[in-house]
Amino acid sequence: MKQFLHVSDIGDLAGALREAEEVKANRFGWKSLGTDKTMIIIFFNNSLRTRLSTQKAAMNLGMNTMVLNIGQESWKLETEMGVVMDGDKSEHIREAVPVIANFCDIIGVRSFASLKDHEADYNENILGEFLKYSGKPVISLESATVHPCQAFADLITIDEAWYARTGHHLGDPSYRKPKVVMTWAPHPRALPQAVPNSFAEWMNAAPVDFVLTQPEGYELDPRFVEKAEVSYDQMAALEGADFVYAKNWSSVSHYGQILSEDRSWTVGEEHMAATNEAFFLHCLPVRRNMIVSDSVIDGPTSLVIPEAANREISAEVVIKRMLEDPR
Amino acid sequence: MKQFLHVSDIGDLAGALREAEEVKANRFGWKSLGTDKTMIIIFFNNSLRTRLSTQKAAMNLGMNTMVLNIGQESWKLETEMGVVMDGDKSEHIREAVPVIANFCDIIGVRSFASLKDHEADYNENILGEFLKYSGKPVISLESATVHPCQAFADLITIDEAWYARTGHHLGDPSYRKPKVVMTWAPHPRALPQAVPNSFAEWMNAAPVDFVLTQPEGYELDPRFVEKAEVSYDQMAALEGADFVYAKNWSSVSHYGQILSEDRSWTVGEEHMAATNEAFFLHCLPVRRNMIVSDSVIDGPTSLVIPEAANREISAEVVIKRMLEDPR
Amino acid sequence: MKQFLHVSDIGDLAGALREAEEVKANRFGWKSLGTDKTMIIIFFNNSLRTRLSTQKAAMNLGMNTMVLNIGQESWKLETEMGVVMDGDKSEHIREAVPVIANFCDIIGVRSFASLKDHEADYNENILGEFLKYSGKPVISLESATVHPCQAFADLITIDEAWYARTGHHLGDPSYRKPKVVMTWAPHPRALPQAVPNSFAEWMNAAPVDFVLTQPEGYELDPRFVEKAEVSYDQMAALEGADFVYAKNWSSVSHYGQILSEDRSWTVGEEHMAATNEAFFLHCLPVRRNMIVSDSVIDGPTSLVIPEAANREISAEVVIKRMLEDPR
Repeated sequence: MKQFLHVSDIGDLAGALREAEEVKANRFGWKSLGTDKTMIIIFFNNSLRTRLSTQKAAMNLGMNTMVLNIGQESWKLETEMGVVMDGDKSEHIREAVPVIANFCDIIGVRSFASLKDHEADYNENILGEFLKYSGKPVISLESATVHPCQAFADLITIDEAWYARTGHHLGDPSYRKPKVVMTWAPHPRALPQAVPNSFAEWMNAAPVDFVLTQPEGYELDPRFVEKAEVSYDQMAALEGADFVYAKNWSSVSHYGQILSEDRSWTVGEEHMAATNEAFFLHCLPVRRNMIVSDSVIDGPTSLVIPEAANREISAEVVIKRMLEDPR
Repeated sequence: MKQFLHVSDIGDLAGALREAEEVKANRFGWKSLGTDKTMIIIFFNNSLRTRLSTQKAAMNLGMNTMVLNIGQESWKLETEMGVVMDGDKSEHIREAVPVIANFCDIIGVRSFASLKDHEADYNENILGEFLKYSGKPVISLESATVHPCQAFADLITIDEAWYARTGHHLGDPSYRKPKVVMTWAPHPRALPQAVPNSFAEWMNAAPVDFVLTQPEGYELDPRFVEKAEVSYDQMAALEGADFVYAKNWSSVSHYGQILSEDRSWTVGEEHMAATNEAFFLHCLPVRRNMIVSDSVIDGPTSLVIPEAANREISAEVVIKRMLEDPR
Repeated sequence: MKQFLHVSDIGDLAGALREAEEVKANRFGWKSLGTDKTMIIIFFNNSLRTRLSTQKAAMNLGMNTMVLNIGQESWKLETEMGVVMDGDKSEHIREAVPVIANFCDIIGVRSFASLKDHEADYNENILGEFLKYSGKPVISLESATVHPCQAFADLITIDEAWYARTGHHLGDPSYRKPKVVMTWAPHPRALPQAVPNSFAEWMNAAPVDFVLTQPEGYELDPRFVEKAEVSYDQMAALEGADFVYAKNWSSVSHYGQILSEDRSWTVGEEHMAATNEAFFLHCLPVRRNMIVSDSVIDGPTSLVIPEAANREISAEVVIKRMLEDPR
């Protein structure tokens, strides 16, 4: 595997889920793959889960790891071409990327959306530099438009919980598909669309009935919505849901803007009551009592902690495949 | 060992000192204990010795290590329950703790006292979250009220120096106990009571004659003073001392306040002259010519560097015990 | 090897180049040397290449590594002796250095010139503390006046490119020496002289014809200029050059000042046209279109990326020698 951005990069989802199960049962079983290999994990932005889970996964596989906080520990990077670099940016990304690539075998990059320049964000300009100029396998650790390690971990979590509840894995032809609802929820700051984009992309590819619900103006990019059912009526959408995925994002059409702070969208017990005793998911970090009430996130169907734990597993499957075949 | 906060967590001190001696003589002798185990070291505050010594100890034992600077590399954490998280804190500690715990086998936490809220600090609210919700062994790397790795290293250093000078280990019934004096000293900023609390706790448990000396208003919490002899006359307290431990702390009764900047308490040669050629100890970092004069800290009885070196040993004993039995 | 600051520390350059070649062909061939050994890498300033290449080199050799960002993760250090430490600096370097040394076998230090105090900088006051008080082998990872890992990597890169072009290694008596020109170039901020100092020092020691060119007032310290040919006419200096090394530095005589912002010194195609199809070198990070035009740095004779890659090799040779014989 040469890059991990989209669900298509992972191939057959059933196979990926079986591989995740194997890895989870035997995390240190492929340690020889990583001997004398190095993973560099680059943060243009903050991170907790991604930082720890990716490092952990790489170490599980026997790799050496190096973490770099761009801007904080290193130099501010210029990303525009052709400019006279007489400002506060000391290094150009066109040098930084191949230099970093010199010192490793796999690169993970966190680089959030600017939320200012729709085109630059949706072109994945920063991650694109790594894809084009590093010559090494590259993993998006949340880039401008996608967060595939999260979506893969979400899928693993849904499959595990569905199996625990019904005895059937996702895609079992002898049983119905779960209804998975992703609902927008309010948040005090403008957030990127990377998590909802990837979750939508993965759910559209998975054997589930996927419904998206949000206020007017919060429509995701059609590339990610695809065939999903979209509803502006949150309570109707939640009806009969087996899984509720809450998430805030800012507007795509009014790019990066907050159009609503409507707290009636905060997922509370009254929302969950409409569901089929749905499991609750969120990628974390989560603003309590903005996105979800204390009672729901602390309740018995909340999966947020095992969901975060599965970040180690999704990362390990991806890194393992890159070590097995970096092309 | 499930937690390391108090002297009672380490059990028999003579046994702990013998184990420290073994570990010091053979730091890499227990490397197989840590194979495929991970230690996460979390800093809510700055650190030099703790950062390096704890990582070193974990690596000596063959562990993988990850270091996380909360706030700087990760998200600011909300610690209040029941709040609407619409401010600058992106994540709640109630999620952060179990998420971090997912990715490791042992957790070390540095989280200084606020010095604003006596009750919250003395309840160890932040460390308490890790103790209650991580499900993993937890080490205080200086939390609000204690710094046990430092106090254990202090004890090791005192035992070594006493043995080197007298040929007798602490607790040898055939020889007298050393007189150990901890003296308050001035400092330009308000400092927590964690180091003096732990030093007092450990000295009270150790076979030494322990004396505390400080200006009026600087009394430590009675839980830590216990049976120690307390004097407000620094020179009288120092008389005949075998060990002088200098340290600043802010007031407990006027919580977090600086009540004195009296430089006559700065430990100088005239103070040391009253002692029994006492060894000088300080946990570092130390403000020269505030806490102690250049001549004393640079003098022949200063133990501050070997004392810091013993931080690797105290940490290694603790981590080793947690690996041997994490319950 | 006990210290790595100057070209004299590495001894015979031909031997060092052969060792670099061996290491590059077999980076993991000396892993047993570093077993149970620890390298601490200390940054008083930002870093990208140095951070990654030094860690990588130490890990190639089987060492454990710890990275410390002074000021950011640790305490601000006082470096003056005899002061009353009542300001914002919590720890004295006189304690910090031996404490750090306690926890490792080799120390690497990045500590840029202040550019305010010529004497303190040229005395290497900060690195000097590590050399005098650590008791461990010390590598300058760019200190106030030198950047030897960079200069060694530059030499390796020149030797490789010269061999690729001519079939002769540097120093081959059967072939001519290459002409190597280091040219000053403009930059919006005042930069230290460490890189040009070391490059000059190493080129003067290497079998090359070395020419230095800069505007009036930018003369380097005579200790580093030595026997180099110096020209104030950039185009004349570049004539027939086989290698062009561009670099900005601030004035030594008007210490730390910017005396010229003359963009005619920016290395462009018209400059390269005067050369003997010269290879272009720069230590990076580089300000594009200030130091060098896009067309030159992106052109076919630009070596900046393999030059950066050789930082891993130069660091590995140095650390390897320190592990083999730390005296």
